[in-house]
Amino acid sequence: MNTPKISTKPPSGMRDFLPADIARRQHVIDVVRRIYGRYGFVPLETPAIENLSTLLGKYGEEGDQLLYRILHRRDGFGRALDEVLAQADALKSGEGGSRGHLQGVFADEGLRYDLTVPLARVTAQYDLPKYFKRYQIQPVWRADRPGKGRFREFYQCDVDITGTTSVVAEAEVCGAVAEVLRELGFVDFKIRINHRQLLRAMMSHAGIDPGHEAAALVAVDKLDKIGHGGVKEELAARGIAAEAADSLMLLILSGEAESLFGFAGNVAATGPKAGISRLRKQLKDPRGLQALDELDQIVDLVAATPAAPHLTLSLDLARGLGYYTGAIFEIAVHDLAGSLGGGGRYDNLVGMFGKKQVPAVGFSLGLERILVVMEERGMFPNLSVGPDVLLCWMEGLARADVLRVAHALRRQGLKVEVFPEEAKLGKQLQYADAPGVKAPVAAIVGVEELAAGQVTLKHLASGEQERVAQDGAGEAVRALLRR
Amino acid sequence: MNTPKISTKPPSGMRDFLPADIARRQHVIDVVRRIYGRYGFVPLETPAIENLSTLLGKYGEEGDQLLYRILHRRDGFGRALDEVLAQADALKSGEGGSRGHLQGVFADEGLRYDLTVPLARVTAQYDLPKYFKRYQIQPVWRADRPGKGRFREFYQCDVDITGTTSVVAEAEVCGAVAEVLRELGFVDFKIRINHRQLLRAMMSHAGIDPGHEAAALVAVDKLDKIGHGGVKEELAARGIAAEAADSLMLLILSGEAESLFGFAGNVAATGPKAGISRLRKQLKDPRGLQALDELDQIVDLVAATPAAPHLTLSLDLARGLGYYTGAIFEIAVHDLAGSLGGGGRYDNLVGMFGKKQVPAVGFSLGLERILVVMEERGMFPNLSVGPDVLLCWMEGLARADVLRVAHALRRQGLKVEVFPEEAKLGKQLQYADAPGVKAPVAAIVGVEELAAGQVTLKHLASGEQERVAQDGAGEAVRALLRR
Repeated sequence: MNTPKISTKPPSGMRDFLPADIARRQHVIDVVRRIYGRYGFVPLETPAIENLSTLLGKYGEEGDQLLYRILHRRDGFGRALDEVLAQADALKSGEGGSRGHLQGVFADEGLRYDLTVPLARVTAQYDLPKYFKRYQIQPVWRADRPGKGRFREFYQCDVDITGTTSVVAEAEVCGAVAEVLRELGFVDFKIRINHRQLLRAMMSHAGIDPGHEAAALVAVDKLDKIGHGGVKEELAARGIAAEAADSLMLLILSGEAESLFGFAGNVAATGPKAGISRLRKQLKDPRGLQALDELDQIVDLVAATPAAPHLTLSLDLARGLGYYTGAIFEIAVHDLAGSLGGGGRYDNLVGMFGKKQVPAVGFSLGLERILVVMEERGMFPNLSVGPDVLLCWMEGLARADVLRVAHALRRQGLKVEVFPEEAKLGKQLQYADAPGVKAPVAAIVGVEELAAGQVTLKHLASGEQERVAQDGAGEAVRALLRR
Repeated sequence: MNTPKISTKPPSGMRDFLPADIARRQHVIDVVRRIYGRYGFVPLETPAIENLSTLLGKYGEEGDQLLYRILHRRDGFGRALDEVLAQADALKSGEGGSRGHLQGVFADEGLRYDLTVPLARVTAQYDLPKYFKRYQIQPVWRADRPGKGRFREFYQCDVDITGTTSVVAEAEVCGAVAEVLRELGFVDFKIRINHRQLLRAMMSHAGIDPGHEAAALVAVDKLDKIGHGGVKEELAARGIAAEAADSLMLLILSGEAESLFGFAGNVAATGPKAGISRLRKQLKDPRGLQALDELDQIVDLVAATPAAPHLTLSLDLARGLGYYTGAIFEIAVHDLAGSLGGGGRYDNLVGMFGKKQVPAVGFSLGLERILVVMEERGMFPNLSVGPDVLLCWMEGLARADVLRVAHALRRQGLKVEVFPEEAKLGKQLQYADAPGVKAPVAAIVGVEELAAGQVTLKHLASGEQERVAQDGAGEAVRALLRR
């Protein structure tokens, strides 16, 4: 062929999912959907493409950078070009400074970056039930640097409850995600919990001024990765006095140490509570005390859910996204650097759309993170992928008759692949065992079988054969599959 | 609030799916997945974002225009700006002519436009089974003018068989989509069939030169919409002599008339075959005769599948997409202007990636089209959306105890929503019936019930109440739901 080769790989950070991949993904999604449903959540889906006005300013500056933007088409593209050309001289001479803002001239739509902001938009747009409990399982796109387990297209599995400030909602989302993970076979995960207002109060107590809060949050969030020394260096680099940094780290540790105890068993009700009561003695800030009260109630309520043995107070947890206002969560397992999921309360996000203010709390599980850990730990059950039966047929048979037999088997609920071409039986049987096919049973039909309304079933693993009536093939194959 | 209002609608041509929408979509998708699996197809998924080199030149010029392109980010965007600025003077003076090609400077990735081209890429990239039968159910994006039933994001449900030129593959894809539609309750659809090589041969026979073939195809494809007179006018406008146009229309009608008979019942084996044999007497072109042979075989094989009563020869069917090489299909119902789906054989598409040539045939169902007809005809079964039970609780109860009861009910497989706030029982019961909640049963727990390990179940439609043990609530609720 003279056609030039085009790359046939998916774009960087994107993946193709072959049938065996889908079977594993579907297994997890089925569990997520079933458990979320049992917790009273109902499904919602939103479009992949959102207006940039919906997305921008919700995820912090870095999030805005990672948004996929859709290039204007036709006239829109022409107008964008004209606008740039009109200021060409200024741009060429460099007067324009950073030119990133010009992206806004070329695009006013972008790809979904998470499932929370679309939910907030939906909550502002429609008349939903007062307490809207929705789940959403859809891909999101982030133009991040791809890496091990980090993709540019990945699925989130979210539960959120809008319309209430009751901490029953926090407990319910924690219970739902914990039960999903337990149902999938996870036993050793931690649900780390902290509170944005508590973090603020701790910083204020440590003498960090409000202007430095955001920077300090980012530094503290790295405690897991860079250790206490590293965090102190970061705080110093961000202009925070050593004394204030020390004071903050001490406060954080006062909760931390306890939660390390707290993790080994069902002592969630005592472990985190001890940390909370110790902090209560140190903090005076009313915001902080209220946050501790809330955490205390959440710990009590979570104790009544499947999340009970997993909850741990993690005062270093900060979460990257800008929109959280109250409790924040993250799920950790020892053999994964990132988290399996995270969430928190965001009481102001719906209000950013300017129509009404609706409080909300949610939790998001990362499908790919769950899959990677399940894969490494060998947690998947035996998942069948291919057909139950490869229908093989002897030379001389009319192909229409073969398709009639296939139809008879399919009517009995069997998954049937028909060998599409005339070929020696040996070649057909060999194909049944080919990678990616792996039919456990071959159903063979020749002139004799056809005349008698029968098929010969060959169990490929054992080599055993039996001839059965077409009408009874469904039961006979299912018996072979159970072996 | 002082926040400016941002639009909270989804972008033009995009939709939010609320829980009741999802229930209907999921109902159809479940049937599609089950039936496609029974026909031996295995699932595949590909990323939403593809390299533009994969997409461009596959869908015809109009398709290329409708692609969503992803704007370059950061340095990539800067380089694109520089490239445009470098030729600013030429562009401003208009020397550049059409500037649409500059889109290629700003984007090298785009959104998935169909599921066939990604399958072709995947087929070229991986070592798949020789006969790869895959299904794929994913959204695609086209920047088309939105209209009634026409969206910019919509789902396709595709089956394809790669690796064989055997017309068994044509029959299998027709059988699979027909069984999906029948399982959903459709009885009156037509599967219109034609053949690209036959169309070419008819044109050549009519005296249309090969240079006019593509234009004539487009005109003929509109027969349904604009009638014979309209097509003739279009053919004339495209420079085709009136004599040739008449001759072509006569050929098309010679098959058409028969297929009109053919539709009213299970006469697919005779209806289309009569049309085929009449054409065989008129055409001399060997391509045309071979196409008629293939159609003849396909008709015989389809007669052995659930598609049998639906097949009809439609010589005016042309299909828009460029990549078809053999048989082409389209599904029509009388109460929808567009089609429910379409497909055909495309033996050269995989080869366009320059690695290997693999023949293929496929059929695509349009989820939204199916949904709109099912909706209008009232074909949906009763689909439950919300929770089975709203758990209501009397003042004074500890919320942790309420969550424990919820957990006990959920363990029995019930979908349970917990009223999250303290409120009068009447208000809670009222909420159970609110739009978007519609829990059929309220489970009420007070101090007495809690102490006795019981709940009071209230069937909201009848108002009947009974007090049952928590452990027996699952069975009791299911009995109420069956009413």
